[in-house]
Amino acid sequence: MDMSTTELVGLVAGCLTTGSFVPQVIKTLQTKDVSGISLVMYIALCTGITLWLIYGMINQQVSIIVANGITLILALIVLYLKIRYRNQRL
Amino acid sequence: MDMSTTELVGLVAGCLTTGSFVPQVIKTLQTKDVSGISLVMYIALCTGITLWLIYGMINQQVSIIVANGITLILALIVLYLKIRYRNQRL
Repeated sequence: MDMSTTELVGLVAGCLTTGSFVPQVIKTLQTKDVSGISLVMYIALCTGITLWLIYGMINQQVSIIVANGITLILALIVLYLKIRYRNQRL
Repeated sequence: MDMSTTELVGLVAGCLTTGSFVPQVIKTLQTKDVSGISLVMYIALCTGITLWLIYGMINQQVSIIVANGITLILALIVLYLKIRYRNQRL
């Protein structure tokens, strides 16, 4: 598969922006420290990513579907933890 | 400008995912509470978004350049605040 440099840049960009939520999920699972995390951010983010998922499905663009599918799962976990530990005193 | 429904979905998705960082910036500026925010997440995120910006410039896709340009500014602010208030006791 001959991938152009540009597509490689896009692939690495997608892996980084998608993968970037993994350290946040791990940190939040370990510390339960959610007071500094914005609930509104993750609600808007999950809504936006869901729309990107729909966008990808309509256009049948596998890369957009896969990247946003994974990101949505990770962002939903952070959103769940934020709601779950919201009133937790550390 | 006759925009298809699909492009409208993409536009709203872009606005939401980009705009979602605004409440996090505001919350962090107000509370200085960064202990729960993952430094590694924002380093990876800023790197990934920079690559998306380069990807957009190579492909001359204005929507990708504008969306990622704004997101990068907002994510860099959160990254700066995370580093600035890292050792702050609340």
